[in-house]
Amino acid sequence: MSSIEQTSTQPPPRGDKRLVRQSANRASYERVDLYHVLDACPIGHVSFVHDGWPQSVPTAIARIDDHLYLHGHPKSRLYLALSSGERVCVSACRVDGLVKARSAFHCSMNYRSAVVFGTGELVGADDKPALLDRFTERLIPGSLDDYRPYLAKELKGTALIRLGLDEYSVKIRTGDPIDDDEDLDLPHWAGVIPIESTYGSPQPSANLNTAVGVPESLLAGVDP
Amino acid sequence: MSSIEQTSTQPPPRGDKRLVRQSANRASYERVDLYHVLDACPIGHVSFVHDGWPQSVPTAIARIDDHLYLHGHPKSRLYLALSSGERVCVSACRVDGLVKARSAFHCSMNYRSAVVFGTGELVGADDKPALLDRFTERLIPGSLDDYRPYLAKELKGTALIRLGLDEYSVKIRTGDPIDDDEDLDLPHWAGVIPIESTYGSPQPSANLNTAVGVPESLLAGVDP
Repeated sequence: MSSIEQTSTQPPPRGDKRLVRQSANRASYERVDLYHVLDACPIGHVSFVHDGWPQSVPTAIARIDDHLYLHGHPKSRLYLALSSGERVCVSACRVDGLVKARSAFHCSMNYRSAVVFGTGELVGADDKPALLDRFTERLIPGSLDDYRPYLAKELKGTALIRLGLDEYSVKIRTGDPIDDDEDLDLPHWAGVIPIESTYGSPQPSANLNTAVGVPESLLAGVDP
Repeated sequence: MSSIEQTSTQPPPRGDKRLVRQSANRASYERVDLYHVLDACPIGHVSFVHDGWPQSVPTAIARIDDHLYLHGHPKSRLYLALSSGERVCVSACRVDGLVKARSAFHCSMNYRSAVVFGTGELVGADDKPALLDRFTERLIPGSLDDYRPYLAKELKGTALIRLGLDEYSVKIRTGDPIDDDEDLDLPHWAGVIPIESTYGSPQPSANLNTAVGVPESLLAGVDP
């Protein structure tokens, strides 16, 4: 785990890997913003260094209390890197809208992004079942009461990794385009086209017994 | 640029950084699949190595012909890495659905992801305006006829980077959960909850002259 705990909400010093240098006015170093972004992103891009190359792997992530969790096969390259204490970076981003300005130069996107640096540690067997439950519930809200129990071989075959949220930065853009003052009266449209991500109706599996309905809790969990 | 051009659609050899080892049946090394995934993802996570740490930066991407393009401030750390020929990895992922099985262990997501390895090169001044136009049109479809011309300082202040699509892997999951045969008759719901990403109605900027309407081409471009 990192020895530097990020308790300050001030920008880190010049040269620090967390420091957001571009559009720094959109940066945040506040934990509440970090949680907000991570909780909106089901996928994180985990990067590590392998054979001299940066390597990034998209994978499911879940923020639970003060840690970020990832799971997978214990023999995968990603989990070997994470469990052996290699330095990793996890980035996550959600796009909320296209920002059209009067000039192409000032076009942008509205987004929420986070970058976390750290080293992973394997979750032990005692803590694993309860944390896997919370992981599942984060990814498929409302589904937790609708599974058969874990098999011993499943618990053994799933590596659950915990990453401290000690070193991070957050970047968020919201709102209108920011055009040059001299462009404001040009006859070009400016504004935001929202991007909305919603759950569709649950589609039953082809082999589902037709007598089995969708649990109420799952319907509530994926209700927009 | 990489000296290895990926022309084969067969998996790369054991130990190759492109080889997908987990759920290898979902891997593809076909260029048509790579384009399909990149074209569905407005954001890529660009990772590089800085001060011994992997560092990943979410940024807008656009696949144009046989290259991936990224743009930004010429002095940013990301563009210094990209323009100086450092090794980078770009990953992109789009989640299409939550896959609920009868056991938590077999839950998954439907997704389309791509990982590209390479080194960047700066686009020269002659090619930049036309490629920036195509970049803008990829990110805000249908908007291209509705901007004032570029200013010289804007072109100078925008680094456009081209990355070859020579080394990559793709991973796609679609369809139903895959439960254990002995679980098929359990009274638990199984299926897919689709995640749909759609454009909302364009929201005019607060400072927009009310006489300026949304261009037809933009409305058509963001029509679901």
